[in-house]
Amino acid sequence: MSDVINLDFDREARCGLPEAIFAEFKTPAQCAAIATQLLARLGYALFTRVTPAIRDALIARLPDAPRQERGRALLLGAPPPRPRLPGTLLIVAAGTSDLPVVEEAALTAEMAGARVETLTDVGVAGLHRLLAATEKLRSATVIIAVAGMEGALPSVVGGLTAAPVIAVPTGVGYGAAFNGVAALLAMLNSCAAGVAVMNIDNGFGAAAHAVKILRQLSPRDDR
Amino acid sequence: MSDVINLDFDREARCGLPEAIFAEFKTPAQCAAIATQLLARLGYALFTRVTPAIRDALIARLPDAPRQERGRALLLGAPPPRPRLPGTLLIVAAGTSDLPVVEEAALTAEMAGARVETLTDVGVAGLHRLLAATEKLRSATVIIAVAGMEGALPSVVGGLTAAPVIAVPTGVGYGAAFNGVAALLAMLNSCAAGVAVMNIDNGFGAAAHAVKILRQLSPRDDR
Amino acid sequence: MSDVINLDFDREARCGLPEAIFAEFKTPAQCAAIATQLLARLGYALFTRVTPAIRDALIARLPDAPRQERGRALLLGAPPPRPRLPGTLLIVAAGTSDLPVVEEAALTAEMAGARVETLTDVGVAGLHRLLAATEKLRSATVIIAVAGMEGALPSVVGGLTAAPVIAVPTGVGYGAAFNGVAALLAMLNSCAAGVAVMNIDNGFGAAAHAVKILRQLSPRDDR
Amino acid sequence: MSDVINLDFDREARCGLPEAIFAEFKTPAQCAAIATQLLARLGYALFTRVTPAIRDALIARLPDAPRQERGRALLLGAPPPRPRLPGTLLIVAAGTSDLPVVEEAALTAEMAGARVETLTDVGVAGLHRLLAATEKLRSATVIIAVAGMEGALPSVVGGLTAAPVIAVPTGVGYGAAFNGVAALLAMLNSCAAGVAVMNIDNGFGAAAHAVKILRQLSPRDDR
Amino acid sequence: MSDVINLDFDREARCGLPEAIFAEFKTPAQCAAIATQLLARLGYALFTRVTPAIRDALIARLPDAPRQERGRALLLGAPPPRPRLPGTLLIVAAGTSDLPVVEEAALTAEMAGARVETLTDVGVAGLHRLLAATEKLRSATVIIAVAGMEGALPSVVGGLTAAPVIAVPTGVGYGAAFNGVAALLAMLNSCAAGVAVMNIDNGFGAAAHAVKILRQLSPRDDR
Amino acid sequence: MSDVINLDFDREARCGLPEAIFAEFKTPAQCAAIATQLLARLGYALFTRVTPAIRDALIARLPDAPRQERGRALLLGAPPPRPRLPGTLLIVAAGTSDLPVVEEAALTAEMAGARVETLTDVGVAGLHRLLAATEKLRSATVIIAVAGMEGALPSVVGGLTAAPVIAVPTGVGYGAAFNGVAALLAMLNSCAAGVAVMNIDNGFGAAAHAVKILRQLSPRDDR
Amino acid sequence: MSDVINLDFDREARCGLPEAIFAEFKTPAQCAAIATQLLARLGYALFTRVTPAIRDALIARLPDAPRQERGRALLLGAPPPRPRLPGTLLIVAAGTSDLPVVEEAALTAEMAGARVETLTDVGVAGLHRLLAATEKLRSATVIIAVAGMEGALPSVVGGLTAAPVIAVPTGVGYGAAFNGVAALLAMLNSCAAGVAVMNIDNGFGAAAHAVKILRQLSPRDDR
Amino acid sequence: MSDVINLDFDREARCGLPEAIFAEFKTPAQCAAIATQLLARLGYALFTRVTPAIRDALIARLPDAPRQERGRALLLGAPPPRPRLPGTLLIVAAGTSDLPVVEEAALTAEMAGARVETLTDVGVAGLHRLLAATEKLRSATVIIAVAGMEGALPSVVGGLTAAPVIAVPTGVGYGAAFNGVAALLAMLNSCAAGVAVMNIDNGFGAAAHAVKILRQLSPRDDR
Repeated sequence: MSDVINLDFDREARCGLPEAIFAEFKTPAQCAAIATQLLARLGYALFTRVTPAIRDALIARLPDAPRQERGRALLLGAPPPRPRLPGTLLIVAAGTSDLPVVEEAALTAEMAGARVETLTDVGVAGLHRLLAATEKLRSATVIIAVAGMEGALPSVVGGLTAAPVIAVPTGVGYGAAFNGVAALLAMLNSCAAGVAVMNIDNGFGAAAHAVKILRQLSPRDDR
Repeated sequence: MSDVINLDFDREARCGLPEAIFAEFKTPAQCAAIATQLLARLGYALFTRVTPAIRDALIARLPDAPRQERGRALLLGAPPPRPRLPGTLLIVAAGTSDLPVVEEAALTAEMAGARVETLTDVGVAGLHRLLAATEKLRSATVIIAVAGMEGALPSVVGGLTAAPVIAVPTGVGYGAAFNGVAALLAMLNSCAAGVAVMNIDNGFGAAAHAVKILRQLSPRDDR
Repeated sequence: MSDVINLDFDREARCGLPEAIFAEFKTPAQCAAIATQLLARLGYALFTRVTPAIRDALIARLPDAPRQERGRALLLGAPPPRPRLPGTLLIVAAGTSDLPVVEEAALTAEMAGARVETLTDVGVAGLHRLLAATEKLRSATVIIAVAGMEGALPSVVGGLTAAPVIAVPTGVGYGAAFNGVAALLAMLNSCAAGVAVMNIDNGFGAAAHAVKILRQLSPRDDR
Repeated sequence: MSDVINLDFDREARCGLPEAIFAEFKTPAQCAAIATQLLARLGYALFTRVTPAIRDALIARLPDAPRQERGRALLLGAPPPRPRLPGTLLIVAAGTSDLPVVEEAALTAEMAGARVETLTDVGVAGLHRLLAATEKLRSATVIIAVAGMEGALPSVVGGLTAAPVIAVPTGVGYGAAFNGVAALLAMLNSCAAGVAVMNIDNGFGAAAHAVKILRQLSPRDDR
Repeated sequence: MSDVINLDFDREARCGLPEAIFAEFKTPAQCAAIATQLLARLGYALFTRVTPAIRDALIARLPDAPRQERGRALLLGAPPPRPRLPGTLLIVAAGTSDLPVVEEAALTAEMAGARVETLTDVGVAGLHRLLAATEKLRSATVIIAVAGMEGALPSVVGGLTAAPVIAVPTGVGYGAAFNGVAALLAMLNSCAAGVAVMNIDNGFGAAAHAVKILRQLSPRDDR
Repeated sequence: MSDVINLDFDREARCGLPEAIFAEFKTPAQCAAIATQLLARLGYALFTRVTPAIRDALIARLPDAPRQERGRALLLGAPPPRPRLPGTLLIVAAGTSDLPVVEEAALTAEMAGARVETLTDVGVAGLHRLLAATEKLRSATVIIAVAGMEGALPSVVGGLTAAPVIAVPTGVGYGAAFNGVAALLAMLNSCAAGVAVMNIDNGFGAAAHAVKILRQLSPRDDR
Repeated sequence: MSDVINLDFDREARCGLPEAIFAEFKTPAQCAAIATQLLARLGYALFTRVTPAIRDALIARLPDAPRQERGRALLLGAPPPRPRLPGTLLIVAAGTSDLPVVEEAALTAEMAGARVETLTDVGVAGLHRLLAATEKLRSATVIIAVAGMEGALPSVVGGLTAAPVIAVPTGVGYGAAFNGVAALLAMLNSCAAGVAVMNIDNGFGAAAHAVKILRQLSPRDDR
Repeated sequence: MSDVINLDFDREARCGLPEAIFAEFKTPAQCAAIATQLLARLGYALFTRVTPAIRDALIARLPDAPRQERGRALLLGAPPPRPRLPGTLLIVAAGTSDLPVVEEAALTAEMAGARVETLTDVGVAGLHRLLAATEKLRSATVIIAVAGMEGALPSVVGGLTAAPVIAVPTGVGYGAAFNGVAALLAMLNSCAAGVAVMNIDNGFGAAAHAVKILRQLSPRDDR
């Protein structure tokens, strides 16, 4: 069986997103090989859900590549400059423990040219913090709401703004949180109309959906 | 096998609550027999989770007993007057669909002597309705918060008041609501400290817990 | 306990969506009362997940109101004309059995002013049908992809277009489909970046998210 | 993205409980930063679900702060003296393995001014031990019942006393205990009326609910 | 495909139990055909989990056969007299709703020659009723303990006697009872050593296990 | 909170089984303290589900106590000699991976005075091995059948013998075995009448049930 | 939205199987429209999982079409004669209740030209019936094994023959059978190597897999 | 209890597959003993799901045996040469992370004499890669399709070819992938007719099913 890895270099052109590699289930050696190919071809390599062993292997193989680490995401090399996207992406999060997901989403969206703002530690058990930021919520073009435990933040946010809300459950919690399942179910059942949901801890995916929305605001010649 | 039903008539004396019969899994004939015994002994019979067939059987057997129907609860006869309990129980609910559970809880608590207030249609996707009632929330002695779907109401209520909050998930919702499981999990994982949770749709149990709390506020000679 | 229903008439102003009533867990009498209030106030009433008994009660109470039935959604009265939203919403569906969800989504989006196109019977086991419509997929502003069983359609669609994709699992299937859970999980784990997911059979919610996106394309003075 | 942590210092005033930090999903560095802020502002910092790495980081950062370790909870600094709350909280537990949850609950309640008694190793398979303490059960104002495995203790306790019972399932057990799910479900389905349930291993939350009850027994001027 | 039903007439000889037919998933016509064969061959036919349609079909086909209906079990014809088994089987049950399972077990065991006693309405929230029967519990040779909801009865019984205890969860309960799953899990995790568990509502199976135990007490020539 | 551990020394007298300590969730220090108490009082201490850390702590504390290690069970000291129980317990197991559970059951039963035989590596995919032992199966008084993966062994064994069968699922398997859940469900649904089931990996419990059965075969004066 | 149903008439040419329509989630009107199209185009229409309402609608619309009903499958019209496939398909089933699935599989395979044999009522609790057919098992080219409850049949069959085994779990059972989940998990974890599994009750799919295997035995010119 | 391991040396003759040992739940010592027996008897030993500790123990015990490691499978010794089987097995996989399962399947099939081809990195979000290989898909005799995450690959492959498709879900994914459950459910619900499914990560089993199919293409005298 051949060992050649068959990357999909055209995805960016086809779908308008930076290519990202889901690292967690690959061996360090596979990740290093992929990074080398991507850097040569695209000038950068973005890995999500990086384990310490994979991180070490990537740095050992490519010690000179510029790198940026945010949450569990690792960016090697320098992505090509992209035109600034219109509008603003606001990422709100319930607690400090949710920050790695916030960071993964922010890095991804920034790489794609989005203007990103964040608002953290605004869990629903202390509403005054969220309500104090109502103006910020209302002026965003699209919002990513990140929360673990009971996952109520997107419902409250969705009731305060007309912007599309993308909910990301996190694995924060214990016992009957079931590693994020409680938050996931809460978000899927939000009584705020139109909350769309991503997989648990999927900051990258939320950013991808947000960027696709922002890209639709740009004038496009081909339509 | 003998057919005699072995009721626990002392529970009220032992635990301070009206006796209630969980009707759903009993046959109409069993329910009618129990009602006859209870009316003779206690002067009333309270049934929860009454099906239409059971309701019809009870009325047919005891056509002259005064009755009160609230939600799926049915009270036959006249409970003895009880001393008014101190404090106030406030029952808040997210939506119109949650009302049967509110009614079961209110009937139970009122029978036990509690002063009951309600605040309904205050779901978290329209926070202004709940915030407008902040004063009411803060002046309650104990609060029952009832919600289906994402079950976020107890978390928000728990952050607005120092009163103990009893959360009751309801089966309202569809798909990934899993007949109340989503709301149940959300409530068990509330980021508001000290929210205690009842089984799905268990308005009776929430009222029982609330009444036991209110009873502790009374002077008791035997301690 | 008062019987007054406390509707949130401002939601449309606050969130930019037509008000819709989730009918399934309400009594026919509650639905009829709500419909009367809404027609008087807004000129229309939109109900989702309508049961036959509720449908009959609504028509009996409001026999003269114009009505439109699509899937399990029922629209009474005449919504006010809204400005046409920019862009196009494309709703794609895997099979004939998914049509009720497609119809609920289409009705909702059309009421909000969206231009809606549909593409049905394009399940992934017969790819030629979907591939033949690639141009249509690529020219849409936002796409709702509806599928039951293995729920693979959004992944395939997401790989063919740069538009944001909103996935709606349906309860179509049997056995290990678990009433839509298999499709829900598949969509949450889509390998196509940025697929956002709604609750099972939630056509209304998908349309709400899509409309919120389309609304961001319009020039808005207040930002 | 700014690194400032946005603590909710007013929660204690608003809800009447000591502030506690859920440590498990935070980095050691985040916990150390939070501890420093809390000690400066409140004079103490209470962490629950502390991992060894977090414990070491907290002690390294604040080596001179007085500390108290009970179960997986860690208290740094000296909480301000609080007035003694009326009544008694009794914590009962089924087995030796449940002690960490007992200790977390006891520490939390004592910090809030409660008089706490404990009764351990009273699992239901050896009823004589529990029955021997019936008087103690009956004289408590509020009871926390902690159990893993089949989680039957709260049902038996709830039948022996009129005090409100707060049930805490623990993760003790194996196989079909599913890390506390069996006990959680048993407690949610207790046939003893009015048993209220917390998340698995949530000793802190149980104490918070108990303290909120005890606080309602005090004369309050503002009502 | 031939329509001949291939019954295992030797099971009784091989395993020492009356043959029983699990009716629920068979068509009424299949059941009627099986009944006819069994009556001709064995003189009786025992059906468990009989639906009303199946019951009607059996009676219509075999109107003259003597019959006995207990719970959802139906016995047609007259089983051959069997020698009385040594010892006593005691069936205890938590509530009135559990009686159908008690009856299925009792009928099965009596058919096999066992001496059966019952003790019902002895749920653990009213311990005095169970404790009053301690002597009865201790004199039984084998005990079947039937309970729904939190399923705690077998744990308490198992701690009061040295007899082998067979636990049968029932579907009695609602919400997080999950049709008997809560009781099943509780029984599997019993802290009373040696409690063995049957499927939900499986009164027949419990009786079968009990009878196999009682048969081992008899002198057997054929070994 | 006092540190005294409240052991139930009378269980053996009450229930006829050696006392065993479920070690897994206790600290090594707790286990060592319990062992010391038990050795002083009973002359032996039996621990199940012993982790390496607990094993080391026990040996360090009681280096001179005789010990016997079988599977994950550890016996310290010398149990008092017991009268040989009548009959034979046969333990059958599907595969080599199931042996730790077999050993835990065998040790427990032997300590209680049972005559134990074993038959291993008789998985149902190679039936000839099991069929070759039919005589052994038929001559046993009671059988424990241990299996992981699809858990079919008890069904096949139950069809070959009239002895009571106790089924023990093990965690052997992967993926959809769900750590023994697949085997547990299979055993609960056995089509062989009267198979009784224990928790996953609960060899101790199976032996306890078996011993209780064997004890009923003995003449007892007190009945 | 257009009402045209977009059938995939080429599937048979592409995949070598008769077209079948999964009826259950379609409306009777949709099914009738599809039947008309298929009869006109292919000369037959095969529906699986037909409800009584759909069955009635199909017969009312197409009263003159020849029809064949087997299990829940309904064949209208006359499929074109196909060449007889090489080899033999043997369908084995555990019990009478599994027959509808057997019939659906047999009808599908026969329509595709397969030689089909059946062997029913061979559940593993009465092994002698299965062992008596060992020769038949060994001479089959491919085997479909159908079972509910504990789902052990495919494991036993897989150990007796070298033919590929396709396992079909059925929903037969109750309680912890979870509508076929127990059997499904057992089959996925079969210790007999190479057992492949279909969805619960999916007799059509099993036949499709079997027919695809048999087709590979034929000489094919076009490859 | 004797320590002799009772291997089923005849399985190969009976079922036509190389013997493989599922290593994961065995101790290193058990595996080493089995390897020694197998090498002496068969000349080779194939282990699947080998942990690092087991791998080390096997090499330490049998340092001179030739070995081949692929994915988590380890082959020691030299299997006897087998006749080449007719036809071709094609293994397709969605991503790089799925390669260990591909390798386990390829090694197993090659050992049994199959001609194996592979096609990897053909996930459905980049369809062009799969479509480019349509010819290869159509010329295969049997196909194994391996995928994690949403598990859509077998459905798409099944629509493109008439060969029997064997689906293998992998544990690749996170959050709501539930270690392969999402992919497993998707595959069980494939809308492509006749996709048969293996346990999560069961590359060995898929190869076994495929080999059994290929073996049926050979002329056999005994039919």
